[in-house]
Amino acid sequence: MFNGLSAFPLTPMNETGVDEQAFTRLVENLVLANVSSIGALGSTGSYAYLSRTERQRVAQIAVECAGEIPVMVSIGAVRTRDVLDLAEDAQQVGVKALLLPPMSYQKLTDEDVYSLYQAVTSNISVPLCVYDNPGTTHFEFNDELHGRIAHLPWVGSIKIPGVSVVPDEAKARVDRLRAVIPKHVTIGVSGDTLAATGLNAGCEAWYSVMGGLFPNTAKIMTDTALTGNAAEATRLSRRLEPLWALFRDCGGSLRVIATAAELRQFTTTPSLPLPLRTFTGETRQRIAAVIDELELS
Amino acid sequence: MFNGLSAFPLTPMNETGVDEQAFTRLVENLVLANVSSIGALGSTGSYAYLSRTERQRVAQIAVECAGEIPVMVSIGAVRTRDVLDLAEDAQQVGVKALLLPPMSYQKLTDEDVYSLYQAVTSNISVPLCVYDNPGTTHFEFNDELHGRIAHLPWVGSIKIPGVSVVPDEAKARVDRLRAVIPKHVTIGVSGDTLAATGLNAGCEAWYSVMGGLFPNTAKIMTDTALTGNAAEATRLSRRLEPLWALFRDCGGSLRVIATAAELRQFTTTPSLPLPLRTFTGETRQRIAAVIDELELS
Repeated sequence: MFNGLSAFPLTPMNETGVDEQAFTRLVENLVLANVSSIGALGSTGSYAYLSRTERQRVAQIAVECAGEIPVMVSIGAVRTRDVLDLAEDAQQVGVKALLLPPMSYQKLTDEDVYSLYQAVTSNISVPLCVYDNPGTTHFEFNDELHGRIAHLPWVGSIKIPGVSVVPDEAKARVDRLRAVIPKHVTIGVSGDTLAATGLNAGCEAWYSVMGGLFPNTAKIMTDTALTGNAAEATRLSRRLEPLWALFRDCGGSLRVIATAAELRQFTTTPSLPLPLRTFTGETRQRIAAVIDELELS
Repeated sequence: MFNGLSAFPLTPMNETGVDEQAFTRLVENLVLANVSSIGALGSTGSYAYLSRTERQRVAQIAVECAGEIPVMVSIGAVRTRDVLDLAEDAQQVGVKALLLPPMSYQKLTDEDVYSLYQAVTSNISVPLCVYDNPGTTHFEFNDELHGRIAHLPWVGSIKIPGVSVVPDEAKARVDRLRAVIPKHVTIGVSGDTLAATGLNAGCEAWYSVMGGLFPNTAKIMTDTALTGNAAEATRLSRRLEPLWALFRDCGGSLRVIATAAELRQFTTTPSLPLPLRTFTGETRQRIAAVIDELELS
């Protein structure tokens, strides 16, 4: 399941709870686009802002709506005890894979992180994707650690952060990681702005934020890259430059995509957990203009 | 209450729960030393690793044991909704103040953080200390934002991170902050290694990690600095250099102090929430040697 477009939907919510109807609409949109997998409750799905009960409920809805499409959910928490509980909850409702970020409060050592993955993989019975995103976890993996973790049972993929903008450097980076992990473990790129570069460099999956809202646009780019048409994939990504510019200018992808979901009426305002908020005013207008001009779907 | 030595005890725990007896011993030790206030459930008290129920229970024990000494607890959480619940829980059990870190998962803007403090201070009826520690919250305050927040009702203190090692620069930093906040709001230094420099530079409080385990040693240094004997406070801090070196060499203060608490038999191993662990082997021996040589108490 760790190949192709893995689409990460938002979890729309307000201060009273999760908007289950809106979440269902978002997942149904991904099913219609026939994405390869659904990454519910990722960073884009605001897993870190939800209670254990809410996380299990959202996972359940995702599994029910997704039909044949496999669902992965994040089981991230700062404490190993809680990660183990979340893994149990998620498997109970039928997720096909788990996504584990080494979420931190106190700074973690390599041995802390290895012991976390060891404890979790000793206690699960579905595949696991290693989530490497220093921007949210504040933990920096090195390849030696990736290699050790990738040899643990149940590890099926590594979600890496954005690669270099230079194709040769991106390929060298992916090759370096590939050299230390088993063959059955796939590498998936995240950081939408450099997804085409990552796929062209040999990543087998795109763990995609924009794909969680605009799966058709994201799927064409993914399939184009994975069938070997690197130049066309690059062209399709360059066409999306106004969206990537928004991600760069507006503090990342989450608030932009959440605003876009409101604009396209998948969700209602507010849709993010306070203190996070979607954009108003000029930035909102700019987002509206970009998603319309690019005909994202 | 935001003056003098504010001692931050550990919350000893293992995978089955909080060791309430050990926590009680730690708080009683602070009461015997007659610290100015007790900062339970700070970063040192591992608030971020505990459930809502556990946090209220720990706050309750702290208040019960502390007698006349005021207790402050952290109400940090990434979501405003949870912060408000935690504030309510803490006030119910009789804490005298709240400590609020702008804990983050997604990167926060100044406006997000201001709105968080605004929401919280509109809903509490005890004083609040602003917790500025980019190392754990991953949010960087600027003085303009500190000034705006310090003018909100109930704000009584700002806990700032380590100041410059150069006394004049430390004083300039404290003066700059003082210029934008109301007179009744105190400034307290954290980062034990530069506490004496901070107190000598005009901070009114030391929010202290080592003071949570070795309150007598910390109190002498605090009182010396606050009565104006800067040279003697500096000498006392320099004497503790082997402890500061441990904090620098061992990834911060928490694991060192937690190991020291085990060595002094306040707690039993394990005492930190996995994936965090105390030190074994040579580092543990070095910690044992330092706390004995320095006669910390």
